[in-house]
Amino acid sequence: MECGMRGQLEERESKIMSPNQSTAEVSHLAVDIGGSLIKVVYSSSNNNNEADDKGKKSSNDCVGIPNGSSDYPVLCGRLHFAKFETSKINDCLEFISSKQLHQCADWHHEASSHDKNIIKATGGGAYKFADLFKEKLGVSLDKVDEMDCLVAGSNFLLKTVHPEAFTYIDGREEYVQIDHNDLYPYLLVNIGSGVSMIKVDGDGKFERVSGTSVGGGTFWGLGKLLTKCKSFDELLELSQKGNNRVIDMLVGDIYGGVDCPKIGLSSTAIASSFGKAISENKELEDYRPEDISRSLLRLISNNIGQISYLNALRFGLNRIFFGGFFIRGHAYTMDTISVAVHFWSKGEAKAMFLRHEGFLGALGAFTSFESHGLNDITTH
Amino acid sequence: MECGMRGQLEERESKIMSPNQSTAEVSHLAVDIGGSLIKVVYSSSNNNNEADDKGKKSSNDCVGIPNGSSDYPVLCGRLHFAKFETSKINDCLEFISSKQLHQCADWHHEASSHDKNIIKATGGGAYKFADLFKEKLGVSLDKVDEMDCLVAGSNFLLKTVHPEAFTYIDGREEYVQIDHNDLYPYLLVNIGSGVSMIKVDGDGKFERVSGTSVGGGTFWGLGKLLTKCKSFDELLELSQKGNNRVIDMLVGDIYGGVDCPKIGLSSTAIASSFGKAISENKELEDYRPEDISRSLLRLISNNIGQISYLNALRFGLNRIFFGGFFIRGHAYTMDTISVAVHFWSKGEAKAMFLRHEGFLGALGAFTSFESHGLNDITTH
Repeated sequence: MECGMRGQLEERESKIMSPNQSTAEVSHLAVDIGGSLIKVVYSSSNNNNEADDKGKKSSNDCVGIPNGSSDYPVLCGRLHFAKFETSKINDCLEFISSKQLHQCADWHHEASSHDKNIIKATGGGAYKFADLFKEKLGVSLDKVDEMDCLVAGSNFLLKTVHPEAFTYIDGREEYVQIDHNDLYPYLLVNIGSGVSMIKVDGDGKFERVSGTSVGGGTFWGLGKLLTKCKSFDELLELSQKGNNRVIDMLVGDIYGGVDCPKIGLSSTAIASSFGKAISENKELEDYRPEDISRSLLRLISNNIGQISYLNALRFGLNRIFFGGFFIRGHAYTMDTISVAVHFWSKGEAKAMFLRHEGFLGALGAFTSFESHGLNDITTH
Repeated sequence: MECGMRGQLEERESKIMSPNQSTAEVSHLAVDIGGSLIKVVYSSSNNNNEADDKGKKSSNDCVGIPNGSSDYPVLCGRLHFAKFETSKINDCLEFISSKQLHQCADWHHEASSHDKNIIKATGGGAYKFADLFKEKLGVSLDKVDEMDCLVAGSNFLLKTVHPEAFTYIDGREEYVQIDHNDLYPYLLVNIGSGVSMIKVDGDGKFERVSGTSVGGGTFWGLGKLLTKCKSFDELLELSQKGNNRVIDMLVGDIYGGVDCPKIGLSSTAIASSFGKAISENKELEDYRPEDISRSLLRLISNNIGQISYLNALRFGLNRIFFGGFFIRGHAYTMDTISVAVHFWSKGEAKAMFLRHEGFLGALGAFTSFESHGLNDITTH
């Protein structure tokens, strides 16, 4: 995977190679408009990387440029990922407009007529901002169900991309070999602004079994109020330098430094998140933003890990995959979720993470194009 | 129940009548020293209510004053409940000293020798503050396990006090008739600074099956940082006048006002607690403390309701009793917990609350006296 920091927030590229890539090009655009972030996935040919990398010179990024023996786009060689804050949706519209991504389908004479002038869109914003897309870009959003997309995106990644899933234990990522014949059932936990927990039984076979409103939006929203951080990433960065014991009430704080073995809690276990703020004559300004961010991240990650495990247990699911933009490949987040799942399951369950964590929904929407060009890959 | 506001934080009395009350007196003292609060339970005769009610004139409150035909204390007619902030433990020590509660056992010549000069103590503070009690009051704390006490207190109340348990639905308390022969098993959720979830199978038969660090200490600690409130009750009071929709991101905020029926979420469901704080150009000072307190209370109550239900489900428990000082008989707290249990269980489970919610541990410690005088009541 290659990463770059362009576009409003971030832009990544992922080479997802297909057997007939050398003759293949498709350019499609799918968006996942969540409560906090807009995730964009589009495909382009391999020949136009340079133009793309320069950021602006990209009018024909996703136009079907001849590649090899064919003049027609049939399969993408490169997927592009970008994200924007939902509150700055105009930046996203400008990005799409400047790259003329929304005109892809029109220019593909061979594209399915159904795909013309259409952007596949999922997430709540697909409903909320449909009129805005029509007005500003002249395109219709073809709404695809959010859960359908998350599951399609996750299944696609787990079956296609190697390595995609990994565990995070003691500070080390370890890639997990996924046996396609033994993938289902699993619990998919998508941590966006809120959290959805989905029991996945197969392609298009799933049920949203639970969720929690304490998710990425809570971390960012509460964190912003408490620390005056300007961005999610800044807040996450702060947490790396923090010490949650300054604010969290530990078992040892209550028991005078000793463990509470009868109930299986060590003196360093958190008894009450933010509980130490009760008894001290300190105000918000007296705490370091780093410590606040760390406590908050730990509260939320631990809580998600616990509720996820309880749901996995309920349905007898051995595998829990965590996705969504909250994770952001952040070591401490993954560590806390892993430890929570380990703690509550008494070592019987393991948290797994996905490399393309934040783009499950957008990828799922992308794969819903009739001619998305990924079929060969998914069946490869 | 009679309530009064004396002592550091609050003092209550509860007449727990026994068959031979007119001839009965016992004065014992038990304390439950938690991370945030110290809960005190002591017994006194019926004759000294007046002295007690005047607050200060209480040197012989718990001394065995002849009542009826007996000179000896055998059964209490009145239990007293008081609470203090753990951070102000000296106020508690002064209260005990001024009422000479710690000398009760000494003065009871008929009291079990085991009970002399002993205060039954539970909670982590029984370990942390043992030396302080010895130094300031000259008494030993006889430590009783926290979970043992919670369960003993809860069983005692459910079997003895009518009415004790109630549901809270649509703003109405409804008392629940408890069949003593069909009490077990149940899930006891004690919401103190942190939360303990205990599967209770009988007297002294239980297992702490789960818990969460997101409890009363989180509400108070985070709430204090966010609103500058000086006390838990002030924060709770604020929440009554608040509107969580100002800060919480609702499903409708993401979906543009429409429901998301496919996943069973209405437009007014909270998608992300505090999630609206992300996208607005507002700082902490721009939000009303009332709204912040409401969102926080809802986050925590809802989360506890959800995790409790998942644990009840896991062990096939139909009844969930909620206790602990977090609840404080507060309508909105009980309402949110009730709605959460109803929502996640699809109407199959009901949250129940206990009138003496905050004193389970202290009552349990009290009942651990060899001659606590409550046996007649419990078997009554």
